[in-house]
Amino acid sequence: MQRDKSDPLSVVTRAPDTDYERIFHPKRVAIAGVSPGGGSGFGTLSLLSLQAMGFEGEIFPVNPKGGEITGLKIYRRVEDIPGKLDLVVVVVAAEESAAVLEAGRRKGAAGGIIITSGFSETATPEGVAREEEIRQIAAKGIRVIGPNCFGIYCPRSGLTFIPNPDLSRESGPVAFLSQSGGMASDYTSMGMWMGLRFSKVVSFGNGADLRESELLWYLGDDTETGVISMYVEGIRDGDEFLKALKSAARKKAVVILKGGLSTAGSRAVVSHTASLGGSRVIWESLLRQAGAVQVRDIQEMAQTCLAFAMLPGRVYRGLSVAGGGGALGIVACDTAEVYGLEVPLLQGSVRDQVASYLPKSGASAVNPIDVANPYTPPEILEKIFRVAAQDNRIDLQVLMLLPHHYKTFAGTRRGWRTFPHEELADRLKSVIRETRKPVVLVMTNTKRGLPDLDVVEVHAKARQTFLAKGIPVFDEIGDALRAIANVNRYYGKGETA
Amino acid sequence: MQRDKSDPLSVVTRAPDTDYERIFHPKRVAIAGVSPGGGSGFGTLSLLSLQAMGFEGEIFPVNPKGGEITGLKIYRRVEDIPGKLDLVVVVVAAEESAAVLEAGRRKGAAGGIIITSGFSETATPEGVAREEEIRQIAAKGIRVIGPNCFGIYCPRSGLTFIPNPDLSRESGPVAFLSQSGGMASDYTSMGMWMGLRFSKVVSFGNGADLRESELLWYLGDDTETGVISMYVEGIRDGDEFLKALKSAARKKAVVILKGGLSTAGSRAVVSHTASLGGSRVIWESLLRQAGAVQVRDIQEMAQTCLAFAMLPGRVYRGLSVAGGGGALGIVACDTAEVYGLEVPLLQGSVRDQVASYLPKSGASAVNPIDVANPYTPPEILEKIFRVAAQDNRIDLQVLMLLPHHYKTFAGTRRGWRTFPHEELADRLKSVIRETRKPVVLVMTNTKRGLPDLDVVEVHAKARQTFLAKGIPVFDEIGDALRAIANVNRYYGKGETA
Repeated sequence: MQRDKSDPLSVVTRAPDTDYERIFHPKRVAIAGVSPGGGSGFGTLSLLSLQAMGFEGEIFPVNPKGGEITGLKIYRRVEDIPGKLDLVVVVVAAEESAAVLEAGRRKGAAGGIIITSGFSETATPEGVAREEEIRQIAAKGIRVIGPNCFGIYCPRSGLTFIPNPDLSRESGPVAFLSQSGGMASDYTSMGMWMGLRFSKVVSFGNGADLRESELLWYLGDDTETGVISMYVEGIRDGDEFLKALKSAARKKAVVILKGGLSTAGSRAVVSHTASLGGSRVIWESLLRQAGAVQVRDIQEMAQTCLAFAMLPGRVYRGLSVAGGGGALGIVACDTAEVYGLEVPLLQGSVRDQVASYLPKSGASAVNPIDVANPYTPPEILEKIFRVAAQDNRIDLQVLMLLPHHYKTFAGTRRGWRTFPHEELADRLKSVIRETRKPVVLVMTNTKRGLPDLDVVEVHAKARQTFLAKGIPVFDEIGDALRAIANVNRYYGKGETA
Repeated sequence: MQRDKSDPLSVVTRAPDTDYERIFHPKRVAIAGVSPGGGSGFGTLSLLSLQAMGFEGEIFPVNPKGGEITGLKIYRRVEDIPGKLDLVVVVVAAEESAAVLEAGRRKGAAGGIIITSGFSETATPEGVAREEEIRQIAAKGIRVIGPNCFGIYCPRSGLTFIPNPDLSRESGPVAFLSQSGGMASDYTSMGMWMGLRFSKVVSFGNGADLRESELLWYLGDDTETGVISMYVEGIRDGDEFLKALKSAARKKAVVILKGGLSTAGSRAVVSHTASLGGSRVIWESLLRQAGAVQVRDIQEMAQTCLAFAMLPGRVYRGLSVAGGGGALGIVACDTAEVYGLEVPLLQGSVRDQVASYLPKSGASAVNPIDVANPYTPPEILEKIFRVAAQDNRIDLQVLMLLPHHYKTFAGTRRGWRTFPHEELADRLKSVIRETRKPVVLVMTNTKRGLPDLDVVEVHAKARQTFLAKGIPVFDEIGDALRAIANVNRYYGKGETA
């Protein structure tokens, strides 16, 4: 914990007194609490998740009954495992957790993940005492994540204890710290289809030992992490958190969802993770001062991180907004203004050139650009975007697509399933490369019922195509504009106080 | 146009000087502008839509070339159609539209729908002159919808010109008036899967004759309509609109999406439907004074109308919020507070009883109610909701479901596709009936990618099941709470000024 104590606000990089490398990329992991018969207990699920992810290290399942599980020998005690451990995962009963953690520490583990609940979050004297015991073992030299958590998801090492068996092995720039395990599970699931790729996800639950501030110091310096997202309910040490947050936010965007801002929410925080809440106004002010980007729900957090991850880091003030439909563009402009974004009037030769690619009737080149029909060929869209980018007040271009309209013409000459997403992705990618101005897609699906699962499928495919070409996709124009505005809040802020 | 002129603010019911019955439920309809060879022109599409909807009246296609289309004789001129017409639909070129409309008028049509564009929205002298000509014909005794529109969708009569061939024949309480055809198309598509059922939808485009104010007077008195939604860009006569809006809003909720509130949006309005925009502040004040509920986008409009259509008309201040996950409930409470909703602390015997149904560890009965896992059986949820309703501070109950979690346990004893939505719907329905307090569902799908289309399908099925039992479903907690808050804005307002 080396920091420049003489100047508490100076940006100081924390020396790694914790062996994060062995915690996030362990070679030898014990899982205590698997069921010999399989079953769906969290111990077994953790093991299955690890195997489904293709974790390459050695796994040592533990259960006093011994036996075998998915081809692995079950050790009766952690002590019986041969050699040194890097990580011990504790999924036994709450009252047995301390002993297992201590055994792991004696086996040389750099970290312990206690998934089990039944600690301070119960607000019982026994629960609080158990957590204190965990803390004392941690102080002897093992860093603890949990209890009452899902631990770590680290795509690069294949380490995961989040009970989503289908998470990606693909790494990316987004880190996530969460006091809530459910949030970590939902957020990583959303990331899969939205295109968020993670560096490290840590669900730390009650945070008996390692928690928000220390993990922030770590991620601030983590070269794999480009943007940090966090779900926090309460923090242990406000001053320390503020320092860690300021330091991290100077290096990369930190997007924070603070739970428990309301009377009822704050009350619930106490029983959820035994943290203290705090008033909405205090938190908003604190987070703003620290240079963090506060968001209101998991959707905004995910959308904002997508924008941070996929857009070059800068302020985007002026937008071109194009779509096939007048009202679409008008409502987009209205929403843009709410978020402090501009949709500048195109003028002169840029406007004339854009107009030359549009139909004579029903279209508009002023910006918003109304291409007048939802079937505008990719070739035309490419031309329009290349020209509009010449206006130096345009920093970013938004294209609103309504691919479900293609289904309307099933059986007619336009055909269905003909939404040319691959061609469009290629053309937009070349526009982005040449103009050096990003394009953001909004693909709203107004057909989502049982007769339209084919539309859902085309949407999902198209989304993958666009994401693969580096083009972020949002469901609704409001989501996209809010995410862009959040990027602006970060890059547009003055010196942090 | 009989109104009490001595008191412009008195609630006056307009006498029907327009034969709306023949316009919305016509028996004999001419469609001028079909293509003899089929094709995908709007004339042919309109005919196909009418036939796909099972419109029971007689249809007379018109094209100077004559011939046949989908088994119907094509008349060369409107004048050649035998007998009287109720409605003439004009999909010919702009310059020929007036003549066709006039022919329809001479055939006794009560209404004409001009789908064709190329009128005042072009801002050309010819376009403006053409529209004036339409207005002069209308003044001779035919009410005109359009030009530059999709006309009418009326499920009860099977009349539709919105190019969505799959709209429902099921009527419902939601009316929609739209200056934008695209918005009418998207909104009715969304209604299909969201559970919005429509009384009458009118896309009136440029509104040369019939438009926002007169249609509001009509829908205010329409017994089939329980809630009116509108997309307006500009209005012709502010005083008249305010009177019509006030009158309608005293009888039923009016939900308004006003497009063109921003500088850029207002500029675009001019080229879209040739209407004048207006400043954000003026509009917000005007709409509030008139007792209307202003919304920000099509999603909020649809969600708000769903709440108005499915919830008994009253204010819902206190909510119980239940879900399987602590953070879920905490963020829900935080969002509720933003929308002026309360999540009261459950106390005494209600709280004890709720607690008795919950797991001992990880759950919470204080409200938000954390049922601690996403697989809580419907039987338990039923008991919890029945008990929580006994607290007289609870006006409405929210249940947050995460059905995708069932897939996590595919292959384990919990199995996949076992989300018991039918049992849950039945049990919740009986709770609602007995407690007389509505239940609102939030069903967030965090798995929407290509490998999870089965999850999308289960969601779509479950949504249908819940809607069929009278339980509204929203995708996200914020959507649900905002819609409830909008219901409160309407029923909680004092006397309108």
